[in-house]
Amino acid sequence: MKKLLLAACALLLQGVVHAADGRDVLMQVSTIDALMNGLYDGELAIGELKRHGDFGIGTFDALDGEMVVLDGQCYQVRGDGSVHVVGDARTTPFATVTFFDEDQTAAFSNVDLAQLQQALDARLPTENLFYAIRMEGIFKKVRTRSVPAQTRPYRPLVEVTRTQPEFEFENVRGVMVGFRAPPFVKGVNVPGYHLHFLTEDRKAGGHVLEATIGEVAVTVDHTPDFYMQLPRSRAFQEVDLTKDREAELYEVEK
Amino acid sequence: MKKLLLAACALLLQGVVHAADGRDVLMQVSTIDALMNGLYDGELAIGELKRHGDFGIGTFDALDGEMVVLDGQCYQVRGDGSVHVVGDARTTPFATVTFFDEDQTAAFSNVDLAQLQQALDARLPTENLFYAIRMEGIFKKVRTRSVPAQTRPYRPLVEVTRTQPEFEFENVRGVMVGFRAPPFVKGVNVPGYHLHFLTEDRKAGGHVLEATIGEVAVTVDHTPDFYMQLPRSRAFQEVDLTKDREAELYEVEK
Repeated sequence: MKKLLLAACALLLQGVVHAADGRDVLMQVSTIDALMNGLYDGELAIGELKRHGDFGIGTFDALDGEMVVLDGQCYQVRGDGSVHVVGDARTTPFATVTFFDEDQTAAFSNVDLAQLQQALDARLPTENLFYAIRMEGIFKKVRTRSVPAQTRPYRPLVEVTRTQPEFEFENVRGVMVGFRAPPFVKGVNVPGYHLHFLTEDRKAGGHVLEATIGEVAVTVDHTPDFYMQLPRSRAFQEVDLTKDREAELYEVEK
Repeated sequence: MKKLLLAACALLLQGVVHAADGRDVLMQVSTIDALMNGLYDGELAIGELKRHGDFGIGTFDALDGEMVVLDGQCYQVRGDGSVHVVGDARTTPFATVTFFDEDQTAAFSNVDLAQLQQALDARLPTENLFYAIRMEGIFKKVRTRSVPAQTRPYRPLVEVTRTQPEFEFENVRGVMVGFRAPPFVKGVNVPGYHLHFLTEDRKAGGHVLEATIGEVAVTVDHTPDFYMQLPRSRAFQEVDLTKDREAELYEVEK
């Protein structure tokens, strides 16, 4: 019996080793263009999402706020600006997560976010891979937005964000959580940087629109593998994903 | 000790259940645009590739022929038209595989391949998901190509295929193996159908350019999950993947 168990464990171990390999996988639910098209129904439970990562960003069922996954905790920045820890039963229509392991670090001070991103680009090995980005410290200024829960019929994201609630923070401690994605995932994810923000006290935050850095430490996790779960819903089957939505995406993200 | 082992097994089992979930994952090595750019160095061993699927298509290190993975066996259709079973130590710069499980079947007779694809499109749930396609039976005509092993400096794929060896088969029994990919993976994989061919005796085949169906049974595996391993090579880091290569891809694939 013991021998049998050991043999079973050896077999099972292969599965775990495989799962362990998977720490450098960026995992995403659905596609950014499906979200742009108004597919806001939750597809995956937060509990399931957390099996694929302890770090990431996204949104919630009915587009109910901005998601930040940090140190294994899932936070919701609601349309009213308040932040709540989210239970495993809630669902997400679009999210990107990974297990964060530091591969690279850098420190920056007194630059705006665009300058920081340019300087970081020069230190990253290539623009052709995915990276998870964690940026922690003091921000002179951060401007964010969130989105309120939507009701049916869902409007396209570009219409929703035209009246988005925005928030401004000055001289605030906090953390930016997000990713840099390669150019060839256009339509699937957001090429370039996509960052969400949480204050140090976890009481405010949102999708980052603009920022001026005071002094931050940036840590980067190189995640060359990519795993995408496409929605099983009828809405996803029926949506037209042939259109180039680059211009709309730019309007939504900025 | 036994209790400990059981507990360990229970933990390990989670990993295996996770791996078992993975049968509906389409897994790919590198991106089609990297291949188009001449990145022909093998990235993943065939033995590793087979851990992700028993069915699929691709090419080999140095662009040495067309790959067909069928029933767990990996075949190489060389530039001279001959077919060889490939060992696990060989490598691939670009391949797409999955574990084939039948979700849908259809029979077709006396149509050309383009008509079959149109008719199949009408029966698939949506163009927004990935499908593995197996098409077996009698073909009135099949025209294929393969590619001979390349030497450095590697030329772009569109140049290589301008002088490709082509093969024609008439009234032949065989099997087409391949995928249908959604429009939003442009640059990453081949949107639409991408099929390779093997004769029933496994002595000839290649990348399908054109075909007329005699009588075939088509089986389709719906694979809504997608897993991509990006190359770790310096060449991949340095290649420019911002260019739209849709026109080149069309020339290469047809």
